[in-house]
Amino acid sequence: MTATTEWIAVDWGTTRLRTWAMRGDEVMFEASSDKGLSRLTPEDYEPALLELIEPWLGPDPVDVLACGMVGARQGWHEAPYSTVPVHTLSEPPVRVPGTDPRIRAFVLPGVRQLKPADVMRGEETQVAGFLNRNRNWDGVICLPGTHTKWVQVSADEIVSFRTFMTGELFELLSKGSILRHSVTDGWDAGAFSTAVDDVLSRPEALAGQLFGLRATDLLEGAAPGVARARLSGLLIGAELAAARPYWLGQQIAVIGAPQISQTYAAALDRVGAQAALQDAQAMTLAGLSAARAMIGATK
Amino acid sequence: MTATTEWIAVDWGTTRLRTWAMRGDEVMFEASSDKGLSRLTPEDYEPALLELIEPWLGPDPVDVLACGMVGARQGWHEAPYSTVPVHTLSEPPVRVPGTDPRIRAFVLPGVRQLKPADVMRGEETQVAGFLNRNRNWDGVICLPGTHTKWVQVSADEIVSFRTFMTGELFELLSKGSILRHSVTDGWDAGAFSTAVDDVLSRPEALAGQLFGLRATDLLEGAAPGVARARLSGLLIGAELAAARPYWLGQQIAVIGAPQISQTYAAALDRVGAQAALQDAQAMTLAGLSAARAMIGATK
Repeated sequence: MTATTEWIAVDWGTTRLRTWAMRGDEVMFEASSDKGLSRLTPEDYEPALLELIEPWLGPDPVDVLACGMVGARQGWHEAPYSTVPVHTLSEPPVRVPGTDPRIRAFVLPGVRQLKPADVMRGEETQVAGFLNRNRNWDGVICLPGTHTKWVQVSADEIVSFRTFMTGELFELLSKGSILRHSVTDGWDAGAFSTAVDDVLSRPEALAGQLFGLRATDLLEGAAPGVARARLSGLLIGAELAAARPYWLGQQIAVIGAPQISQTYAAALDRVGAQAALQDAQAMTLAGLSAARAMIGATK
Repeated sequence: MTATTEWIAVDWGTTRLRTWAMRGDEVMFEASSDKGLSRLTPEDYEPALLELIEPWLGPDPVDVLACGMVGARQGWHEAPYSTVPVHTLSEPPVRVPGTDPRIRAFVLPGVRQLKPADVMRGEETQVAGFLNRNRNWDGVICLPGTHTKWVQVSADEIVSFRTFMTGELFELLSKGSILRHSVTDGWDAGAFSTAVDDVLSRPEALAGQLFGLRATDLLEGAAPGVARARLSGLLIGAELAAARPYWLGQQIAVIGAPQISQTYAAALDRVGAQAALQDAQAMTLAGLSAARAMIGATK
């Protein structure tokens, strides 16, 4: 097995650790675990990684390129932020000292913005991967997830970005609030569209519409999937209302998992905006591959 | 002890059970527990109540008047909703059948609104108490809490109302989200006012400002109480933006616990609105006392 692995790609976030054995840009093997940062103390990082990549290691040291929250101060090894406006991959990956001699591990820097204050760790690698494959692309990249990012890109630079807690809010409200009694399985696409329209036309009314999901269910009974789709539509609609300066009149790419990317595309369609969907994993690997070029290929 | 108790007032919500031994409008004794609806199954209700009021019971049956979620379908005994527009206390309390012979227990009906769908259980009793003490009062009553209500009142009728999940959102975001790392103790009144102003002037920007609390802390460090006050200000500001048709140009009363009532008064002050603060417990007891008149005094 080991002969085939030229380098190892790692996406290490708050909840997941994902690894890929790579030959050039080709994935040979992959492995993942739930050992994200939220479950790890400093001495846990290397064992958690080796547990997954051990089968891919040989006698010669192999480069390991890691992006995500792993580079935060409370992560494996801090990789300081670059500051916008910044060329993607302008700062080299930071070597993690004192590792097992079979690996040379590097952590990619995150990106920060001073005004308004904002930070990202991981998405900058996906943006770098996208730009690496789409030279001279200007526009805005939306990266939906727990904390969705909107990133303005021009001349291969991240010009500005903004983070929205939309995914986390949806989880909290649908699982931890009074709305959990009404947010059942299923998905009513019409209810989603109506909710997006409602918020975009009157964003100031949002706060009064959340409890309405519960009250409507109590008084009228809700059809399956209506409350779930409407809650999602209200929250994504509020995000689009706030992110309007980003997407209005811009070329748009969405980098994310297929389902959430399609949901964002459907919301953008309500405002007449077309988005090109890009696979998140492919962009992560392309970004890590580009970062690898900065440290020089090893054997 | 028993000789002094003419009736028993009960406020029974999702998280708390509160009881008062009353003589006329005067509180003789009080007792409370954490046996709210979220912890009870149907057979638990009467024991949970008797556990608190047992010392106040004598040989003759005493009237027990209860308001709150206790009248919901999943509560002790269902008391159907009245429908707005409706005079407060237009429907009589509903007798709970088959209780211990030492009590005659009644549950007050809640109030519902069909368009837009909304419900309340408990606040209608506080509104009734307030109107009982303030005859011919027209205006809007704000009842802040986990689910804040805005209630339009005219000619002793509840005309319309709207529920906001502001308190629950604050709890979820300050304790269960990424913001919990930044929302520390303390209260910066200036940060609260600025946040209220920010949302009221640009309500569409709200979704982009939540993660900013975390990012500002990460990049600049936050002074104690700034993030807490700013989060509260953003959420209450969003509520005021949505509730504008309620408070604009209206006489306003706030019925709630002292601290949250003062917070709402401070927010209303930012839009030049003055609010008269009323104690929540006093209004609950006044409302239950008024409801008692509908069933006729016993003894």
